[in-house]
Amino acid sequence: MRRIFHNLVSLKEAKQIIERNFEVKPLGEEEVDILEASGRVLSEDIYSILNLPPYDRSKMDGYAVRAEDTYGADYDNPIELNVIGSAKPGKMPKIEVSKGSAVEISTGAPIPKGANAVVMVEYTERKGDKVEIYRPVAIGENIVFSGSDLNIGERILRKGEILTRREIGVLAAIGVRRVKVYRKPRVAIISTGDELEKPGLKLEDYKVYDVNSYSLYAAVSEIGGEPLKPIMIRDREEDIRKSLEEAVEKADIILISGGTSAGVGDIVYRVIEKLGKPGIIIHGLKIKPGKPTIVAKVKGKPIIGLPGWPVSALMIFKIIVEPIIKRMLGKKINEEEAIKVPIARRIIPSKGRVNLIPVSLIRGEGDELRAYPLIAHSGAIATLKRADGYAIIGEKREIVYEGEVIPIRLFTEDLKIPDLTIIGSHCPALEKIVEIFEETNNFKVRIIAAGSMAGLISIKNGEADIAGIHLLDEDSLTYNVPYLAKFNIEGAVLVKGYRRRQGIMLRKDCKDKVENFKDILKSGLRFINRNRGSGTRILIENLIKKVSEEMGISMEEARKMLKGYNLEVKTHASVATAIKMGRADVGVGVEFIAKQYGLEFIPLKEEEYDFLVKRRSLKREAVRKFIEMLKSEEVRKLLNEMGMKPSKEIGNIIWPLSR
Amino acid sequence: MRRIFHNLVSLKEAKQIIERNFEVKPLGEEEVDILEASGRVLSEDIYSILNLPPYDRSKMDGYAVRAEDTYGADYDNPIELNVIGSAKPGKMPKIEVSKGSAVEISTGAPIPKGANAVVMVEYTERKGDKVEIYRPVAIGENIVFSGSDLNIGERILRKGEILTRREIGVLAAIGVRRVKVYRKPRVAIISTGDELEKPGLKLEDYKVYDVNSYSLYAAVSEIGGEPLKPIMIRDREEDIRKSLEEAVEKADIILISGGTSAGVGDIVYRVIEKLGKPGIIIHGLKIKPGKPTIVAKVKGKPIIGLPGWPVSALMIFKIIVEPIIKRMLGKKINEEEAIKVPIARRIIPSKGRVNLIPVSLIRGEGDELRAYPLIAHSGAIATLKRADGYAIIGEKREIVYEGEVIPIRLFTEDLKIPDLTIIGSHCPALEKIVEIFEETNNFKVRIIAAGSMAGLISIKNGEADIAGIHLLDEDSLTYNVPYLAKFNIEGAVLVKGYRRRQGIMLRKDCKDKVENFKDILKSGLRFINRNRGSGTRILIENLIKKVSEEMGISMEEARKMLKGYNLEVKTHASVATAIKMGRADVGVGVEFIAKQYGLEFIPLKEEEYDFLVKRRSLKREAVRKFIEMLKSEEVRKLLNEMGMKPSKEIGNIIWPLSR
Repeated sequence: MRRIFHNLVSLKEAKQIIERNFEVKPLGEEEVDILEASGRVLSEDIYSILNLPPYDRSKMDGYAVRAEDTYGADYDNPIELNVIGSAKPGKMPKIEVSKGSAVEISTGAPIPKGANAVVMVEYTERKGDKVEIYRPVAIGENIVFSGSDLNIGERILRKGEILTRREIGVLAAIGVRRVKVYRKPRVAIISTGDELEKPGLKLEDYKVYDVNSYSLYAAVSEIGGEPLKPIMIRDREEDIRKSLEEAVEKADIILISGGTSAGVGDIVYRVIEKLGKPGIIIHGLKIKPGKPTIVAKVKGKPIIGLPGWPVSALMIFKIIVEPIIKRMLGKKINEEEAIKVPIARRIIPSKGRVNLIPVSLIRGEGDELRAYPLIAHSGAIATLKRADGYAIIGEKREIVYEGEVIPIRLFTEDLKIPDLTIIGSHCPALEKIVEIFEETNNFKVRIIAAGSMAGLISIKNGEADIAGIHLLDEDSLTYNVPYLAKFNIEGAVLVKGYRRRQGIMLRKDCKDKVENFKDILKSGLRFINRNRGSGTRILIENLIKKVSEEMGISMEEARKMLKGYNLEVKTHASVATAIKMGRADVGVGVEFIAKQYGLEFIPLKEEEYDFLVKRRSLKREAVRKFIEMLKSEEVRKLLNEMGMKPSKEIGNIIWPLSR
Repeated sequence: MRRIFHNLVSLKEAKQIIERNFEVKPLGEEEVDILEASGRVLSEDIYSILNLPPYDRSKMDGYAVRAEDTYGADYDNPIELNVIGSAKPGKMPKIEVSKGSAVEISTGAPIPKGANAVVMVEYTERKGDKVEIYRPVAIGENIVFSGSDLNIGERILRKGEILTRREIGVLAAIGVRRVKVYRKPRVAIISTGDELEKPGLKLEDYKVYDVNSYSLYAAVSEIGGEPLKPIMIRDREEDIRKSLEEAVEKADIILISGGTSAGVGDIVYRVIEKLGKPGIIIHGLKIKPGKPTIVAKVKGKPIIGLPGWPVSALMIFKIIVEPIIKRMLGKKINEEEAIKVPIARRIIPSKGRVNLIPVSLIRGEGDELRAYPLIAHSGAIATLKRADGYAIIGEKREIVYEGEVIPIRLFTEDLKIPDLTIIGSHCPALEKIVEIFEETNNFKVRIIAAGSMAGLISIKNGEADIAGIHLLDEDSLTYNVPYLAKFNIEGAVLVKGYRRRQGIMLRKDCKDKVENFKDILKSGLRFINRNRGSGTRILIENLIKKVSEEMGISMEEARKMLKGYNLEVKTHASVATAIKMGRADVGVGVEFIAKQYGLEFIPLKEEEYDFLVKRRSLKREAVRKFIEMLKSEEVRKLLNEMGMKPSKEIGNIIWPLSR
């Protein structure tokens, strides 16, 4: 029963098939109080049933007068009128303004009979029952005439408008308290998979937490749909059939994720095929990712099978499901809602399919947006966190060059574009500095802990503003500067940072077995390695080299002696956690973290942690302020507390020396 | 007790005073289910408590193998392996892959012992209990390694992040079901005014409906605050004191609108001054509008008095209140969130104050945004409907020139920029055509019924794409074209439209009194006029001229004989409604509307309703499609049904004749 997707359709074909099979339109209307109408879509035209304003009103505080009586008034020759009463909002005063008289009037009050203008209070002076007028007014001045704003019978709001504070104000103004809006489509969300567990419960071995139920629930809410409580089920035909049948009864559209790939767990597909005609109408998309997407029609309702990987599921939701839900809500769909942004790095897409590449939006050299493609596996949570949207690469493209402007569709309108992007080595002190920086300066910073080498490359490619690096040069045994020449770094400067101690971290119970790095190899303790490209990994390789020379063996042999050499993690904290929790016994990391986790620490090397800064980013306020802050007493204090040593030169450009 | 605002402060000073008096920050936190967390602001840092993925997983459907066993495989020389079992997500298979064997594996399933790579199913063929491999794989290929995505102890989300579908997915992935968020600030909303009535209730004479309660309620909801049920009260000191005291108990921030102007109804001010120290800390803003804004501190809580006029209230809400509520929510405020847009028309601001000018965003000649200033009175509902935001004009500016780029702050992010702006004469047929156009083409159209002359001017000023006009030239007695020369219209073309019959509309009970326009003057029936600048008004003036000549009187005398000459409304429908409802007896309008309202109709003139189109707008798709649609059978049919006569030339450019 193995099924391979043979009938993949393009996105355009998929939309046509959906058009042919469903009449996607609002599902009906309901009446709501305008207090609950925010964000809803109006399902009726609204005509005014009154004139606005309903009576002639004063625009200002002042005196209602006959304009003729004020002609010729000025500060030297004020005209005196008798104040015969006052007009307040809400009722018509019984008095009438005649020649030589005036009525004190408040903003919004009805204009008394006989008056044809209002003098602003600023141009008057009250003297007992008289008022002096210092400026003439023209007939009609400071009066809002009845019906001048809106007439009975005028259509003021139209079917399909989204109700915001303004439209709701308009409705109130014409006396409408309850209004008809399109009802929200009910969306069923089902996750299938034998490996799934619900968040909040204990995770057994070989299980993962269900992500799609929750991200899709939030996505449906965000666009104004009504998500039903998500259902998580196992890959059992009977369970899937039952929950799909129930969902078809209750919901207007059904989302099911996982289980749609052509594999062993491929039951969803078979179940839907048995649920009723026409059943499955789209058997996969010519989109990467999205191949396992299916669309079915059961009892007239759409069932959409989404890929199981979280990022893929969100992308296909956006491209296929969101337009359907929005149209069911009566919202207009603008197919062109993609924004156009230059790509920060070359992409080589998969051939013959439209490629959706998750991207993170960053600020470019000016302050313009750039899209940084995220190439991680689409199951990756890091990608889910950092992806602001995705680039759409046409199926005929073989390569997309850096700087090419491409359409990007955003996941949400709530953009989180950082003011400052730091890519590079992970350092707990840097994290703390950034925390303080964000709090005091109101900037958003994105730190991507990718290792020193990745930081260097990101600066070279213009993707990061700042890279934290600590790169040991084997030949000179100095840090950082030699790499800048080696990698031909231009358009960047090196800003001095601080020194930190790297050393061996180990649990107290292993303390007696290790005094130096060689002992790790000899002791047979389980080592935990750092990721390639990290400064710490370069240090580790350097240590292995020295030890292998000492022991007269090859580096390869030495690596084999290091149990766990292949287990890589990305941060100092991850090394410490693994040791603390017994997944490993020993590793290499900074002193501060070792102490924080209560581990033993054997110093190996004092290293220079500096900041490579893109020269053009120096123009940006966030970058300037960050560098400035490095020089502050606060940062010095913080570093000392964390056992790091701020350089005397901290915050100064140390390379290139002049230019 | 008259109080004039003497201590106006600038916006900057106001913000400083607020800073000095309040520590504006989140009010506390609460725990919510991630299913209810969408849009909320995280109040804690989130660290991962597990590795992701928690075990080595397959990226693909296929076969788990020892990579070494596949080396050298190709389509001509497939390598055959024994399938010894299968691996499904959720549990570790008990079998171990050894030399020459393979395990069938599903996407997401754990990698069985002994295997170090996965061959995609596409490059295999199953033959009974064997599988043929057509492509070699490298060690690690198609495997997502444990911890490669996220490590225990890594901080994955930070305090202050807004939770959207992505963050909620991340929380689910690491097993977090309940999360701490900042609690929503409770916002009390009070409207005061003796003239106010609640929408939904009958409007007594000299009352208006309360708008601010509802628009502010919606505004607070939109930004994530928790509005309390709005309170509407009269301008009585006791009522105001009581509701303010209650609000200070219940709410975190109190908004009160109306009653804050320095006039007769100025009680709010006095009440607040008695409520407690320090009381009022800001006595008015050097902003237009916004002078009557007050800020007070009572029992440590901010009370903000907003202007009573709806548009002013929303602008001051945006500028003063929204930043406070957002900071209470833990959201970061970007003071620079104004967008920069060229202004479509010259503005002469009031001196010595920052001017906030409501603007409507329209599409310019390219497709770029332009801000069209709305100069109507700030109580106007039409302004409330059309204002997308407001321009901020510095206090030192004496003039802002057309085309100057100025900062615009938007009311909501839900922009409603029309694809097509039609300003000009009101016509029921045009409304219908636009309705069909919007439905079939998915374009947003904004129609501003401002009269033919205003349409002409808007085209001249580049503000409209299309103007519907029917302008009778007195000399030639022809329509439209003479005006184009007279007003020196360049950069526009005239597209032929249709003919419609104008005539006298009157109620059946007045039928016997009127046979022609002269009879209206003689009969003493109450007339209802159209607005100056409308084509129909020009027709009416033309009729008055003819009648006055016939009667041997001056036009002024004839106008005086026309009872109700000064009562102007803006649309045909408004004329018909006024007659139908007995506010007037007779008017001038198009045949279709007369029939629709069941009124008598006496034909006067067949007029030409044409479309003046900005030449540069002809490049825009929406405009081209609209003109194209005019030629369609559907529109022809519609016009005929409505008693209009489509010209043979409809949709063709009739002026200038060649270029």
